[in-house]
Amino acid sequence: MTWHIFSETNLRNFTENIFKKMGCSDEHAQLAADVLIRSDLRGIDSHGIARLSGYVRLWEKNRINSKPDIRIVHETPSTATIDGDSGLGLVIAPFAMKVAIEKAEKYGSGWVSVRNSNHFGIAGYHALMAVEKDMIGFAMTNASPLVAPTYANERLLGTNPMCYAFPAGKYPPVIVDMATSAAANGKLEIAQRSNKSVPSGWIQNAEGTISNDPHELKNGGSLLPLGSDKHHGSHKGFGLGATVDILSAVLSGANYGPWVPPFVSFLEPPSDPVGKGIGHFIGAMRVDGFRPVEEFKSHLDNWIERFKSAKTISGEDKVIIPGEPELEAEIDRKLNGIPVIDAVVKDLNGLAEKLGLQHIEESSIRQEN
Amino acid sequence: MTWHIFSETNLRNFTENIFKKMGCSDEHAQLAADVLIRSDLRGIDSHGIARLSGYVRLWEKNRINSKPDIRIVHETPSTATIDGDSGLGLVIAPFAMKVAIEKAEKYGSGWVSVRNSNHFGIAGYHALMAVEKDMIGFAMTNASPLVAPTYANERLLGTNPMCYAFPAGKYPPVIVDMATSAAANGKLEIAQRSNKSVPSGWIQNAEGTISNDPHELKNGGSLLPLGSDKHHGSHKGFGLGATVDILSAVLSGANYGPWVPPFVSFLEPPSDPVGKGIGHFIGAMRVDGFRPVEEFKSHLDNWIERFKSAKTISGEDKVIIPGEPELEAEIDRKLNGIPVIDAVVKDLNGLAEKLGLQHIEESSIRQEN
Repeated sequence: MTWHIFSETNLRNFTENIFKKMGCSDEHAQLAADVLIRSDLRGIDSHGIARLSGYVRLWEKNRINSKPDIRIVHETPSTATIDGDSGLGLVIAPFAMKVAIEKAEKYGSGWVSVRNSNHFGIAGYHALMAVEKDMIGFAMTNASPLVAPTYANERLLGTNPMCYAFPAGKYPPVIVDMATSAAANGKLEIAQRSNKSVPSGWIQNAEGTISNDPHELKNGGSLLPLGSDKHHGSHKGFGLGATVDILSAVLSGANYGPWVPPFVSFLEPPSDPVGKGIGHFIGAMRVDGFRPVEEFKSHLDNWIERFKSAKTISGEDKVIIPGEPELEAEIDRKLNGIPVIDAVVKDLNGLAEKLGLQHIEESSIRQEN
Repeated sequence: MTWHIFSETNLRNFTENIFKKMGCSDEHAQLAADVLIRSDLRGIDSHGIARLSGYVRLWEKNRINSKPDIRIVHETPSTATIDGDSGLGLVIAPFAMKVAIEKAEKYGSGWVSVRNSNHFGIAGYHALMAVEKDMIGFAMTNASPLVAPTYANERLLGTNPMCYAFPAGKYPPVIVDMATSAAANGKLEIAQRSNKSVPSGWIQNAEGTISNDPHELKNGGSLLPLGSDKHHGSHKGFGLGATVDILSAVLSGANYGPWVPPFVSFLEPPSDPVGKGIGHFIGAMRVDGFRPVEEFKSHLDNWIERFKSAKTISGEDKVIIPGEPELEAEIDRKLNGIPVIDAVVKDLNGLAEKLGLQHIEESSIRQEN
């Protein structure tokens, strides 16, 4: 496989310019680009600039509004519902987190359910905004249906990620950022591209039988909830996905379950929507709403140290603290550049040509098997 | 196996009297009994009166204070920390939920982290208190270490359950109430009693190897996080268990990770505590803090109908909505009585003799293989 290496700055400028060409304000273009680039920096390639052309295509079909009037439509001191006016989730979710943080500053916590939005990138970006203020950050979103609940042979839920982020002291924050399916869709895409089989328990085929062929997902199959099967707790993964769906969409007035509009432009949204767009749920709680910040941080440091130094099973040398791999990627890629696969680079340059922009400037090329 | 059938009233009165003999006030005895009996009614036998003698033994060892001064030690309008004064979690958690509900009534939401508590019974009991007020209920607790994080060969987390409960309209509430381990400890206990093997992915033995022998848990083995292994997302189950631990204990000042005191009286608490007792995290959000209650309920009804009527995989006739099996058990057991196994009845009657009470009066006996 051919990897093209880009500096963070080049990739960021390119992405900003694309969003500006869509009609986004400078501020929105900058923010949306920041969310995507942060994803690439953190090694979550499936949610970064690889998705840029997807946003553009949805905008071309008038399914994304590049000049949204994002507003609070309902609120109490510590809660709010936001209507994203069909804008980019990449700017609506940070807006929602700002509202949550302001409420938390005044009342201890802030909780925002969002409707009429689109794909918001990585949940961790939004949750980390709270961590920077010494708050605990929460971010979840529903998504296009790909997951079959336990016993179902229908895609009724998205991979519906949930993220919890906690500020530590001398260590980086603990960030739990996870799809509620057994495997994220990004992992399936990697297996599809390389034609490799996937472990039993990730997907079932159109007949509802467990399959190891990643292409079955495109042929009417479904992803399975975390837990994979009833014996291993897939009803729990289903319950978590359901929780995300209800908090994000039933609570805000967005579409839920099988009514969530697809992220891809070649599939039309359901003709009988039950709400507006997709939904998110965002929260922030002040740590010092519970105990002094320094006390919390020193105990979380102690927690991290104890877990990191745990005795391991044979063949493994350490327990990985949630958020560690993403931070390691971020440090590496800020220094050494961001690798992007050939197909994505072609896609981005095609986008540039269509919108009258320069090709993206790469630093180097790397060949890998 | 021999099952003794008890009426709800007989079991409740017996349990209340035991708590009174421990020195609990009438109000506390009534509440604690209600939490335990509700668990038996809902079919969660592992968390009901089967645990009564465990609470008594901890009280005998001065590890449970039957006359606690439960108080708020820190608060903002929408958050609070409660010190449970070593009382029964069965009364501390409902106290915390009352505080959360009062805050939600005034400010939209209420979030309470609890330290210095003990086992709180089923999370669903507490979360459902919010649902009765047209709020969304949250309840979690940390617990004695039994679960090894991904790659670890040490028990560092409890089965750390999380519960989310949502009020519906014409249907019963949706209640996601789940251990964050692949299998709850209660399931292991059932397998141990019947000497049956357990599925691969529930436990590992003292050497850190996956095992099918449920007795390995007692021989130094560990439960595995939801997801079972790294390929199937056990790092997500670990992340969820960590989230519960941090919100319940690092945030409140309770013990966390391997420092959580064991629920059993024959094991001493760690000699180097990092906090007080065990911790819970309880929350309530007003539905009408986001949208009108009737709108939410009618959409949640629609959500339930859609999921219940999903196409199923071969051999299954319906998708089970989270909370349905427990409600079915509750209806059945309220009508037909609560079955209790022989060993537990003996244990309860021994307890009665020790505390100078009458044996528990049963309605009938049932033999089953």
